[in-house]
Amino acid sequence: MTNTRTCLLMLFGCVLTVSQAAELEPELQVKQLMNGIITPATNTIWGAYQLETDAQWQEVENAAYAVIGAANLLAIGGSAEGEADAAATEQWQEFNAQMLAASRQVLAAVAVRDEEALSDAGNNALYPPCEGCHQQYQNQ
Amino acid sequence: MTNTRTCLLMLFGCVLTVSQAAELEPELQVKQLMNGIITPATNTIWGAYQLETDAQWQEVENAAYAVIGAANLLAIGGSAEGEADAAATEQWQEFNAQMLAASRQVLAAVAVRDEEALSDAGNNALYPPCEGCHQQYQNQ
Repeated sequence: MTNTRTCLLMLFGCVLTVSQAAELEPELQVKQLMNGIITPATNTIWGAYQLETDAQWQEVENAAYAVIGAANLLAIGGSAEGEADAAATEQWQEFNAQMLAASRQVLAAVAVRDEEALSDAGNNALYPPCEGCHQQYQNQ
Repeated sequence: MTNTRTCLLMLFGCVLTVSQAAELEPELQVKQLMNGIITPATNTIWGAYQLETDAQWQEVENAAYAVIGAANLLAIGGSAEGEADAAATEQWQEFNAQMLAASRQVLAAVAVRDEEALSDAGNNALYPPCEGCHQQYQNQ
């Protein structure tokens, strides 16, 4: 009886925690998140070349932050029908983790002002998961 | 005994759920989120006037999506020291909810191509929670 009581109390605390976490439901559909955050930010990253001023590098750095924020959101998926289920798949999470890692690679290139490393991060690390995820999920 | 066993099984499921939710830890510091997403998006919204083409309206719509995504992230706060605690305060959540509601007001103005409503949403709904939150938390 004491065990059951303890257990019920723990369950109650647990339900409270879950209910807090449940507030983090997606506010945007994936398409809105793409149009609002990812597309403009990746355009900035992929379009960056012959960077000279600190302001130009800063713009690329900020774009990388935007993609990282988007990846943070895409971990729970979008608010449209079926998007939470898609986000729960292993492949989605893998593409998302690659996008996140690629954005951090962009930040590393920006930190040392290395345009070749930036181009490598954009084309060889960031582009593949974008393309792969689109092919896998865009028309579902 | 059966009760205890059932209860323990429920607790196990509960722990699994909490552990999934815990993966949603913030990837960005609040300042990075501001620079990467909110500042460029709010500049677009506040700077919008004499909109004529669909592309111009679309740009404002996308900026509103960006702020909504940022609000979604700010609900859990940033990754820098103390930022999760700040986000847990009632006032932070209230400012954040106001920013979210204001962004949806921007979307409503865009939907009917009403520049006066857009200006009202930007200046009277979106600006106050930004300013209020900065005064309250920026130098903490």
